[in-house]
Amino acid sequence: MTTGEPAQERKRRGLRTGRLEAFSDGVFAIAITLLVLDLALPASASRHLLHSIVELWPSYLAYVASFSTIGATWLGHNAITEYLERVNTVFVRLNLLLLLVISFLPFPTRLFADYIGQDSNERVAATIYGLTFLVVSTMLLVLWRYALHAGLVRPDAEDEEIQLLTQRLTPGLGGYVVLIIAGLFVPLIAVIGYLAVAFFYIIPFPRERWNRLTARRSRRSRRRSRG
Amino acid sequence: MTTGEPAQERKRRGLRTGRLEAFSDGVFAIAITLLVLDLALPASASRHLLHSIVELWPSYLAYVASFSTIGATWLGHNAITEYLERVNTVFVRLNLLLLLVISFLPFPTRLFADYIGQDSNERVAATIYGLTFLVVSTMLLVLWRYALHAGLVRPDAEDEEIQLLTQRLTPGLGGYVVLIIAGLFVPLIAVIGYLAVAFFYIIPFPRERWNRLTARRSRRSRRRSRG
Amino acid sequence: MTTGEPAQERKRRGLRTGRLEAFSDGVFAIAITLLVLDLALPASASRHLLHSIVELWPSYLAYVASFSTIGATWLGHNAITEYLERVNTVFVRLNLLLLLVISFLPFPTRLFADYIGQDSNERVAATIYGLTFLVVSTMLLVLWRYALHAGLVRPDAEDEEIQLLTQRLTPGLGGYVVLIIAGLFVPLIAVIGYLAVAFFYIIPFPRERWNRLTARRSRRSRRRSRG
Amino acid sequence: MTTGEPAQERKRRGLRTGRLEAFSDGVFAIAITLLVLDLALPASASRHLLHSIVELWPSYLAYVASFSTIGATWLGHNAITEYLERVNTVFVRLNLLLLLVISFLPFPTRLFADYIGQDSNERVAATIYGLTFLVVSTMLLVLWRYALHAGLVRPDAEDEEIQLLTQRLTPGLGGYVVLIIAGLFVPLIAVIGYLAVAFFYIIPFPRERWNRLTARRSRRSRRRSRG
Repeated sequence: MTTGEPAQERKRRGLRTGRLEAFSDGVFAIAITLLVLDLALPASASRHLLHSIVELWPSYLAYVASFSTIGATWLGHNAITEYLERVNTVFVRLNLLLLLVISFLPFPTRLFADYIGQDSNERVAATIYGLTFLVVSTMLLVLWRYALHAGLVRPDAEDEEIQLLTQRLTPGLGGYVVLIIAGLFVPLIAVIGYLAVAFFYIIPFPRERWNRLTARRSRRSRRRSRG
Repeated sequence: MTTGEPAQERKRRGLRTGRLEAFSDGVFAIAITLLVLDLALPASASRHLLHSIVELWPSYLAYVASFSTIGATWLGHNAITEYLERVNTVFVRLNLLLLLVISFLPFPTRLFADYIGQDSNERVAATIYGLTFLVVSTMLLVLWRYALHAGLVRPDAEDEEIQLLTQRLTPGLGGYVVLIIAGLFVPLIAVIGYLAVAFFYIIPFPRERWNRLTARRSRRSRRRSRG
Repeated sequence: MTTGEPAQERKRRGLRTGRLEAFSDGVFAIAITLLVLDLALPASASRHLLHSIVELWPSYLAYVASFSTIGATWLGHNAITEYLERVNTVFVRLNLLLLLVISFLPFPTRLFADYIGQDSNERVAATIYGLTFLVVSTMLLVLWRYALHAGLVRPDAEDEEIQLLTQRLTPGLGGYVVLIIAGLFVPLIAVIGYLAVAFFYIIPFPRERWNRLTARRSRRSRRRSRG
Repeated sequence: MTTGEPAQERKRRGLRTGRLEAFSDGVFAIAITLLVLDLALPASASRHLLHSIVELWPSYLAYVASFSTIGATWLGHNAITEYLERVNTVFVRLNLLLLLVISFLPFPTRLFADYIGQDSNERVAATIYGLTFLVVSTMLLVLWRYALHAGLVRPDAEDEEIQLLTQRLTPGLGGYVVLIIAGLFVPLIAVIGYLAVAFFYIIPFPRERWNRLTARRSRRSRRRSRG
């Protein structure tokens, strides 16, 4: 119980990162699971259930698009925090902003599901939906760029790994802008596009490249533990 | 603060598995707890409360069946991740797919509870309910088989233990197929069957066998710590 | 990365207990937070808001009673798992049963809040509410007694500590039975009683006794770290 | 498996703090994410969606004010527990009280969003909303003052750090009292004020001061690890 040895110190910072991750995981997990509450049949559905269920397809599409986007953002968040040595007060606040948009996502999801097929309204709903995705995606990139800028990234992270992650997080932004504009004409196409962007994020890094990196990293770590 | 010693390295991978488990636990816990929101009395229930509550029995049945299935899946997920040495990018994505179906489950649960007793509709509802269970159960098996195939399982896991887990995860699939077909004729029987399958998963491993394995494992570990 | 050293082994068990606690904490936290969803003003509330809010008092009472009971159960669960050296398969299943009742609790809470003041119905609602509390409380005691019976408790736990916990978990059962019967005559009294029982559980152990125990324990641990 | 070595002992206390934090993080995360459920368009919104969405602005305002307040409280809670060496039974109960108010917050949020613009009712709604914020903020201060009073704070925490945290947690109380009174005349101003108070808490510590402290702390820890 001697005070303040470095182990204590490290644990203390660790706890901090730990709670940031625990709280973020909580918000991601809840937002992703609350989406199901908006899958509801109208009260008039009693007669032909199968028909009503099939007619609900825009809801399923929005459900899967939002689920995939939250899932992809969680993966990205995961990748970012894995490279962090520590967090600082600004990072924690930026993270809160990201969570604000994530936890807001069920609202535009419901909007889209409710108003698809109502000519002028579906454009409004699809645009708001797309803008939310754009903000989520921008916030994630801001979080990563800030971590790089503020020197929060672990010193042993290789430049190639860092670049790879930056490359992964960036292109979606352009995609969302294009899709939001496309959505002004054909809202449905836009939403299918949002799903595609999420899949692009979710699909694993190209295997050869990643394997090369991982192999190199574990070789490096083995060398260190010997030396 | 020397960079990249193996302890650091291990912690980093550990964190990754840790967040996968934390996020999964979150989704399981939320999905299982959201089920209660669909236990609602109709507005016309005011007169004879006890009568209305008793009439809600299909809701309770569906509640318990879905709760047990999510609980059993969590137990299975737990058993799988306990054998893992590490996870890879594909595993994380397959896991997201499993969580997609888990977090979707409250929807077919509500469908079944709402439409039981309405002749043709109850068949549709029971079939969709059963198909969801089938997909959950398949995804869990896929997760485990992928982990085995990709060499993510810890090298010190005994073959017998691995086989035992594979045996536990497999037979439910056949059961679900049979029950879905049975549900086309007698929906209620199917749902009772889904409950039975969940109980089959939940009931502990046969005691003698498990004890034998555990005893062997702890002997093994004691031998190692001496040697 | 040598396989299966005891540290690994311990971590493995640890993880298991860790996930049981994480999942349980999740369900407790969600169930306790979902209670607020049932605090809703009727649509006809627009005229005299303050009046409508005051008229909602049975909802607040039920909200606080359920919140306190879930909180008290979480504290009890916490105390139990703190004494555990390990969990076994039966314990995990009993724990799932406890969580089933905890996550069910928002339903009888809503029932009570909705039907208080409707003569015959309020008795039904209060009885179901009380029975749920009784089952929660029984399940917690069963969990603890099973842990004792199956030898899951840490060998260094003192008999006095164990007895103290058993004494804490037991008397509520009798209290609930008495209150359920009282509730058949004056439902409101019963609910105030449920609140009182929860407070009894929540109020800390008598200070002198606890301090004595803690002091003794830390003396013990200091002696060990010297020897 | 020797019984009760100090590592075990420490882990045991650690677990306890760990579960308190995990449970608290869960409640914070759920309460903050449930807020979105109250962002719902009225059924009559079908015609001019954009118009209806814009008209919902008090809901967004309340959403952001409550989100920021819960976020700020989580940050404060985080800062408090980071300074704790251990928790005691009273602290755990006070923490439950804080969580009670946090999980209650979605109710006054909805009230405010629903009744803004209805002359006399909006005053009632804004006052209840403000009182809840005041109680949240008081409870957080009580938690911290109790921890200081009961000697739960780590001995290596510097006085300046402790004073800084006390200074951060205190002034909001006065702010809330002023705003609640202001809200009796112009409810909208009050809510914008609540948002401002939350931002005041969320905005990081003044940089120079914090950097000085952090630098000093890490120098201290380096010296210790050498000596």
